[in-house]
Amino acid sequence: MATLPEKATHRQTRTFNRQLVLRAVYDQAQISRAEIARRTGLTRTSVSALISALLEDGLVEEVGRGPSTGGKAPILIRVRPDARHAIGLDLGDTTFSGALVDLRGRVVASARMPVSGRNGIDAVAAVLDLISELLRRNGTSPLLGVGIGAPGVVDSRTGTVRWAVGLDWEQLPLDSLVRERLGVPVVVANDSQAAALAEITYGSVPWRSNLVVIRVARGVGAGIILDGKLHQGDGAGAGEIGHMTLVRAADPAAAQCHCGRSGCLETVASMGAMVAAAKRLAPRIADEDALVDAFHRGDDVARGVVERGAEALGDGIAALISVLNVGQILLIGPATRLGPAWLAAVRRQAERSALPLLARDATIDLGEARENDVVIGASAMLITRELGLSLVR
Amino acid sequence: MATLPEKATHRQTRTFNRQLVLRAVYDQAQISRAEIARRTGLTRTSVSALISALLEDGLVEEVGRGPSTGGKAPILIRVRPDARHAIGLDLGDTTFSGALVDLRGRVVASARMPVSGRNGIDAVAAVLDLISELLRRNGTSPLLGVGIGAPGVVDSRTGTVRWAVGLDWEQLPLDSLVRERLGVPVVVANDSQAAALAEITYGSVPWRSNLVVIRVARGVGAGIILDGKLHQGDGAGAGEIGHMTLVRAADPAAAQCHCGRSGCLETVASMGAMVAAAKRLAPRIADEDALVDAFHRGDDVARGVVERGAEALGDGIAALISVLNVGQILLIGPATRLGPAWLAAVRRQAERSALPLLARDATIDLGEARENDVVIGASAMLITRELGLSLVR
Repeated sequence: MATLPEKATHRQTRTFNRQLVLRAVYDQAQISRAEIARRTGLTRTSVSALISALLEDGLVEEVGRGPSTGGKAPILIRVRPDARHAIGLDLGDTTFSGALVDLRGRVVASARMPVSGRNGIDAVAAVLDLISELLRRNGTSPLLGVGIGAPGVVDSRTGTVRWAVGLDWEQLPLDSLVRERLGVPVVVANDSQAAALAEITYGSVPWRSNLVVIRVARGVGAGIILDGKLHQGDGAGAGEIGHMTLVRAADPAAAQCHCGRSGCLETVASMGAMVAAAKRLAPRIADEDALVDAFHRGDDVARGVVERGAEALGDGIAALISVLNVGQILLIGPATRLGPAWLAAVRRQAERSALPLLARDATIDLGEARENDVVIGASAMLITRELGLSLVR
Repeated sequence: MATLPEKATHRQTRTFNRQLVLRAVYDQAQISRAEIARRTGLTRTSVSALISALLEDGLVEEVGRGPSTGGKAPILIRVRPDARHAIGLDLGDTTFSGALVDLRGRVVASARMPVSGRNGIDAVAAVLDLISELLRRNGTSPLLGVGIGAPGVVDSRTGTVRWAVGLDWEQLPLDSLVRERLGVPVVVANDSQAAALAEITYGSVPWRSNLVVIRVARGVGAGIILDGKLHQGDGAGAGEIGHMTLVRAADPAAAQCHCGRSGCLETVASMGAMVAAAKRLAPRIADEDALVDAFHRGDDVARGVVERGAEALGDGIAALISVLNVGQILLIGPATRLGPAWLAAVRRQAERSALPLLARDATIDLGEARENDVVIGASAMLITRELGLSLVR
């Protein structure tokens, strides 16, 4: 009920309506002005004026005529995917990877950079190098900005990496470091949260307004979507389910975690932990590919390790279910290559560990496997913020 | 952007504005029409008309004049606490208790009824008996309705008790059973969720928009408030943290839970479990009072049992912190009588078990001890829904 000066209100209304129209176009492959008016509730006149401005900015284009519904066949509008490019980065512990993507999240060019051993300010330099490399590959499309997915606890509201142990970053203002150098908008987010957003933005699995997307990679992290919005928590650390302690530290089975404690879920359930455990028992299982192959071949070592990992993940999911009574869980990340047998073991344990009634409320499924999910998710966060689209409902 | 017939819109606006005004009055001890206009952004004329209607309904009253701010001293308005009464019930496993409360949540009359052994339809009859008993004690205030806090998984949107094992209720439409008999509005909610709402509605501890209120009583349950709203989950079972399995079922320490599984948090951390464990070791500690006394006297058995309970609760809170990165945890319920030593043990373990950075984001404190928290909370849910107030921000 706060009253604003009338001019500001008009400008705000216009910005809001412009975003409504852009979103209506973005949500469809192509759409007529009349259909936009119908979907947004705006008048035909307003829609025409706003579309003219978007055409002038080059964000949308006319693409011929659609089927007539009586009168003259309507001109169809669509987003010009190449109108802007964005850079998305995934700052893994051992490799930084990145891509130049268009407004539809399609990769135009990509690059990788090993970072093993580089941390602190050196790792920041590596981020800037990787961005420069991608910029060199950019054509004539203006750069909309940079989206960065980083491991650890990341506050995307302040653009600060609060804590990323592998990179030795603490309270690092990554957003402003990159922004000062490049002069373009930057979004920094937790890698699992970014990947979760990629899944629900571009994935083909239908999702409901309450869901948890769990990424099982080198670590285990989750994007928690409640009422259609990403829940980040008071310190932006929500979804750090990899550090739930399910096995007591006193338990001899509790492995040391890189966070400095022991017994964390991800010391057993992550792809990284499963590979390490298998390698200790059978040195030939030296990497993710080898573990996936061995598991699919029915190798005993691989089966034992994967089943133990799946059980720990199932226990963690059961805790999530008891706390949030969330109806949908999607699993993404490299571990999904372990396929249906791994999924079945996760489901079995979640069912065993959760209150039966709440377990019945929840489905656990594989999301869409997507190699560069963090890169795509980070760029999607940037694109949607800059264009005023809403990433989630 | 949906367009509604103009008349409906006008009526909706009026209802909305009436609630705005009523809430402004409810939020203050007493308030002038001018101050209401200032707080709501409505015109003086609208406010006067709406206040006249509320005076006519008897919901508010004039209470003399406030200090002048230049002109004539303004007439002050306040809610008439006795304008309506509500009934609140707490359906404990062994005793049903209830109260007649006024619009400010003050108890006008109360009643109790032992229910041991009665379950199923017999327990429903006991609910109706208890309501009749309270109605007999009501004076001339019209009954606004009945709010019921029940153990187990309760869907307050459909008024259904989905599962309350102690009462042998499954998919029981308690709302409509009571409504058909009495012809007044009914709210049915989970007891811990209701108590959590009592804490933030009437408690004196300042609360933030993300918090978890954990009730440690015969069981352990929580009300999860996110962005100022109670998160109930897809099946209304959110907050069932008492059934998180922290100790593996295979662990010999994992006790049988009344839910049919073993190793649930509440088999160790609840007040009920602590009393039972102490009684097994030292029969003189036969009830809650005895346990609280013995613990405060430094009795070894009591100390051992309470510390084990506090540790399990700390582990559960750590999981909550890792999942939600919630900044505030309040503990309520009978176990808070164990006082600062119990709280300290809970804090210590939560700190040990949660990711250090996220643990630092969170405070854990005692809420306001309140014997009839479920009764008050259930009635508050009814009152706020019926008057269109908003219980939480």
